[in-house]
Amino acid sequence: MNQPSIPSSGLRGPADHDIRDQIIAAANEHFSQYGYAKTTVSDLAKAIGFSKAYIYKFFDSKQAIGEAICTHCLAEITSAVEQAINVEGISPTERFRRLVKTLVSTGVNLFFNERKLYDIAAFSASEHWLSSQVYDAKIKSFVLQIVREGREAGEFERKTPLDETVESIHFALRPFVNPLLLQYSLDFVEEAPALTANLILRSLMP
Amino acid sequence: MNQPSIPSSGLRGPADHDIRDQIIAAANEHFSQYGYAKTTVSDLAKAIGFSKAYIYKFFDSKQAIGEAICTHCLAEITSAVEQAINVEGISPTERFRRLVKTLVSTGVNLFFNERKLYDIAAFSASEHWLSSQVYDAKIKSFVLQIVREGREAGEFERKTPLDETVESIHFALRPFVNPLLLQYSLDFVEEAPALTANLILRSLMP
Repeated sequence: MNQPSIPSSGLRGPADHDIRDQIIAAANEHFSQYGYAKTTVSDLAKAIGFSKAYIYKFFDSKQAIGEAICTHCLAEITSAVEQAINVEGISPTERFRRLVKTLVSTGVNLFFNERKLYDIAAFSASEHWLSSQVYDAKIKSFVLQIVREGREAGEFERKTPLDETVESIHFALRPFVNPLLLQYSLDFVEEAPALTANLILRSLMP
Repeated sequence: MNQPSIPSSGLRGPADHDIRDQIIAAANEHFSQYGYAKTTVSDLAKAIGFSKAYIYKFFDSKQAIGEAICTHCLAEITSAVEQAINVEGISPTERFRRLVKTLVSTGVNLFFNERKLYDIAAFSASEHWLSSQVYDAKIKSFVLQIVREGREAGEFERKTPLDETVESIHFALRPFVNPLLLQYSLDFVEEAPALTANLILRSLMP
């Protein structure tokens, strides 16, 4: 067993970072093969070749490891969305279309094409882990940004309270945002994103 | 064991109807206690006091019994919706609001407050049973009826192809229509129906 020494102080150096990443990568691999629910920290420890106690120096619980994996995975989606929408010279309407399209394609790809992450993401969503809450808030902030910009540009209506508009759009996007719902929307991922984006954009017309 | 005689001809009289209903009622009771998946036709037969062979004279399979239960349950929802929207003198806008509200309240009540029917309805939805398809088609026909009426009255816009409008609204209502999605929307049943109805109605504005 290969167990690097841990600094006795509370401070963690870059080496600790590497070990955390190593545990996360191995856990990710293990979860994807055996499922998150069925895997214990002991299983993980055995598979990685660390002691259970050693893993607990870096993570408080199995959930903490799951959270780290989930945070990473959901950040991949939000950064793909960010990249797609933050392009100079496109209209708020086009930005919104890209938001929906990228959300769906990245989500489907990450959660279902490899099926690696669905398990953990589903846990995160159903048990309202922080990673899910952060993801949800991030998507909502993208919606807010686009709606605000569209209103300022005169492209979207301004009669409805901004909060209500954002809240209702955020809810309308749930079947694409939340992996638990997305699993039942897979038959619709070809047509529904464009249909939904169009419906929402019609609701935003001045 | 109480086994009424079966007419030897293929024709079924009213007595057969009663027996079918008796089997359905008993199965419903049994499924709600032990779950649809775990119950076999043998379990059912024992519980009802009929022979398995006798049950098979009335239903081809366990699924056929489940279908009958589901059809009945989903018909309760559609008839509640029908009653709520087919009121003289209300506008298409008001009709649409009632459609959404009644869908959610009746669905939540039937599927979750007693939790009796969720199991079977979830099976029906995930395996695309005929009962689910009929239910889905019925909801869509309500949407079509209201949109068409609103267009004729000049209350709704007419630029978008009717098919697209209906399809996109039908999809937007899925989190309330489909029990598999509804189970993950229970935290939202207070506010989301009105928010969603408002968003859709804004999208319909001329």
